[in-house]
Amino acid sequence: MERSPTPRSVRQGRTSEELRRHNLSAILGALHEGGSRSRSELTRNTGLNRSTIATLVADLSQRGMVVEGPPKERSGPGRPSPEVHLSDVGPVVLAIDIGVDSIGLAVVGLGGQMRRHERVDLAPSRRKPEQVVRVIAELGRSLLPAPPEQRLAGIGVAVVGVARRRDGLVHFAPNLGWRDEPLADRLRAALETDVSIQVGNDADLGAIAEHRHGAGVGFANLVFLHGEVGVGAGVILDGRPIRGADGYFGEVGHVTVNPEGRPCQCGSRGCLETEIGELALLRAAGVEPARVGREAIDEVLDRAAAGDEAALRALREVGRWLGIGLSSIVNIFNPDVIVLGGFLARIHPHVEGQIGSTVGKRALPASRAGVQIVPSRLGVDATLLGAAELALAPVLADPTSVPTAVEAA
Amino acid sequence: MERSPTPRSVRQGRTSEELRRHNLSAILGALHEGGSRSRSELTRNTGLNRSTIATLVADLSQRGMVVEGPPKERSGPGRPSPEVHLSDVGPVVLAIDIGVDSIGLAVVGLGGQMRRHERVDLAPSRRKPEQVVRVIAELGRSLLPAPPEQRLAGIGVAVVGVARRRDGLVHFAPNLGWRDEPLADRLRAALETDVSIQVGNDADLGAIAEHRHGAGVGFANLVFLHGEVGVGAGVILDGRPIRGADGYFGEVGHVTVNPEGRPCQCGSRGCLETEIGELALLRAAGVEPARVGREAIDEVLDRAAAGDEAALRALREVGRWLGIGLSSIVNIFNPDVIVLGGFLARIHPHVEGQIGSTVGKRALPASRAGVQIVPSRLGVDATLLGAAELALAPVLADPTSVPTAVEAA
Repeated sequence: MERSPTPRSVRQGRTSEELRRHNLSAILGALHEGGSRSRSELTRNTGLNRSTIATLVADLSQRGMVVEGPPKERSGPGRPSPEVHLSDVGPVVLAIDIGVDSIGLAVVGLGGQMRRHERVDLAPSRRKPEQVVRVIAELGRSLLPAPPEQRLAGIGVAVVGVARRRDGLVHFAPNLGWRDEPLADRLRAALETDVSIQVGNDADLGAIAEHRHGAGVGFANLVFLHGEVGVGAGVILDGRPIRGADGYFGEVGHVTVNPEGRPCQCGSRGCLETEIGELALLRAAGVEPARVGREAIDEVLDRAAAGDEAALRALREVGRWLGIGLSSIVNIFNPDVIVLGGFLARIHPHVEGQIGSTVGKRALPASRAGVQIVPSRLGVDATLLGAAELALAPVLADPTSVPTAVEAA
Repeated sequence: MERSPTPRSVRQGRTSEELRRHNLSAILGALHEGGSRSRSELTRNTGLNRSTIATLVADLSQRGMVVEGPPKERSGPGRPSPEVHLSDVGPVVLAIDIGVDSIGLAVVGLGGQMRRHERVDLAPSRRKPEQVVRVIAELGRSLLPAPPEQRLAGIGVAVVGVARRRDGLVHFAPNLGWRDEPLADRLRAALETDVSIQVGNDADLGAIAEHRHGAGVGFANLVFLHGEVGVGAGVILDGRPIRGADGYFGEVGHVTVNPEGRPCQCGSRGCLETEIGELALLRAAGVEPARVGREAIDEVLDRAAAGDEAALRALREVGRWLGIGLSSIVNIFNPDVIVLGGFLARIHPHVEGQIGSTVGKRALPASRAGVQIVPSRLGVDATLLGAAELALAPVLADPTSVPTAVEAA
């Protein structure tokens, strides 16, 4: 099916009411990403003048989103400036992470602070959508306090598959065995809520979390390469998450690296995923692929640490293909940093040298010169925190969209 | 050399003066990309109200950028609305395209209209920077009228290589044999001008031109795959050109597709460029690679048209690898449209079927479902028009930055 051209995009004009919302958003965003700071710092950060900042901070304070405290310390001339903090009783979101082996839930406030947090294992026989949703509903009820104690501004879900942002339909989650699942609708019914539920791909969301709170802080161009059984990537360019025409941007797991290689579950063959996913390592190490999971990987890494030749050879083989894949990623995206997530973060110490030498031989000198390749800093919580960012986005974009504590009561 | 994190980016506040410039820019951008329209249409396009539009159009008119004419036709109730056109005597830019075999120059006004245009062949022995700059200076002098007849707002240059946007240094243009050439400085001296000179990669700029005026109009996500001897890509995502950390985004010509394939000039081996560039076709067809150029390619295409088996086999071989490369491009970028430029546009009719079947087998169903793969519509002028867009960008972003005709006189 061919897609028709969308109407030509035209830049929109802007009103002064939009200007106020934009400026509230700028202040809240600075506190969310960079933490507490004084009013004078906010003046410098935003380029707005002192009295405008005072008015806007008062507005956010009235909305229960920030509180003002005493000046931190006197620096420079002039009166010391009050310190602005995110409020402990501001809006929260419920973050949900649906992986292949586990489900994570957290109540998260502005600033990406996890208030409560649970993660439970997911047995292979319990991966049906209705089963997963039931587990989430139980955990969710125990985590979420009754309103109006906390204002629930939204729910964000990270799922190991491709999801339609508009309505939370999961098109395809091969490792869960899901196809065209109306996940957001199921969750809305099970959680008995009418707040907005946003669903996104776990690698896309992990990229956002590592960029705002993890190994990618301060870098404008980031690739989060997330590998477990499947391999996907989330990409941030010029500070903005990229999604592509249908939300499938960055499926580098299905770049052909070995044209006559093994068949891939996607229908092609010799995809990067078939050479660097968990199954490739187990196969090369002589472990039964059906045993795939954290334990089997631990076994290979333990054997390698003990000097077992088959395990070391398997890591070298996966390291070589990972190096080839990373070289292409460097050339394609010219990123500042590549963050390895999931399984790839775990094998990183074993393959770091080999990655370096392969990228040194295969990537373009100009693009590889500045790039850093590092393991995830948020670990298993990267995708969960990314789900929280998805749900917090509307609050950050328009702080006036959240009912105040009084309105909510 | 590792790159340090840049300071955390913070959204800036905005003043009412910036608001006015933004709105002038919105109107001029609508006319530049979409052509003449009535004041009421501008009202609808921008979301601004009628009296604001009238004031802004009067401002642009005073700046000599637009003229108002009689209403085109009466449609709907109310008074007919004056038609707003781009002015014939508005600012112009000089566009320069430095290819391997030819140099193109054009004087281009708002709306991407070429006022004057020249293209000359470039013999292999005349590719030294000082020779190229001398040819450009001669052509430039004959094309550009003396001020203040026309207001030269800037100069844009497309070059077959990687260039630093900040100062117009060409880092590396292997097919010209250039390395670290201060191209903008050389041109500034030779053209005896103090207007801004912007230099960009030809594939990046071709993508912008196809997006605004060619085969990519109306598509938000576009990949322009430009192939001659070398292969590069320009990428537009969500309507915005993407450049990467250092300006090298989209070097898909150096994605590894054949790990044990031929050595590539980049230092790696089995890059896409080694399998689908002009040299790959000539080699496969048994033509001496040293003869590379338009004539040698014509010969292979003529032989294929006459049923010559070696030529047909060579096209099949290149078509197969092009299909594999396009499958990866579909999976990586999830674009709405892929535009094939240069040599790849010329072979497109011969390899179209094979591309279709390979992409059908190798690309992810969800991503390939909506994508169109089409030849360039602007042909050899795509990169030249892209150079004009580069030079016009500051005018479009801030129409108040250009001196009025009176100030310039």
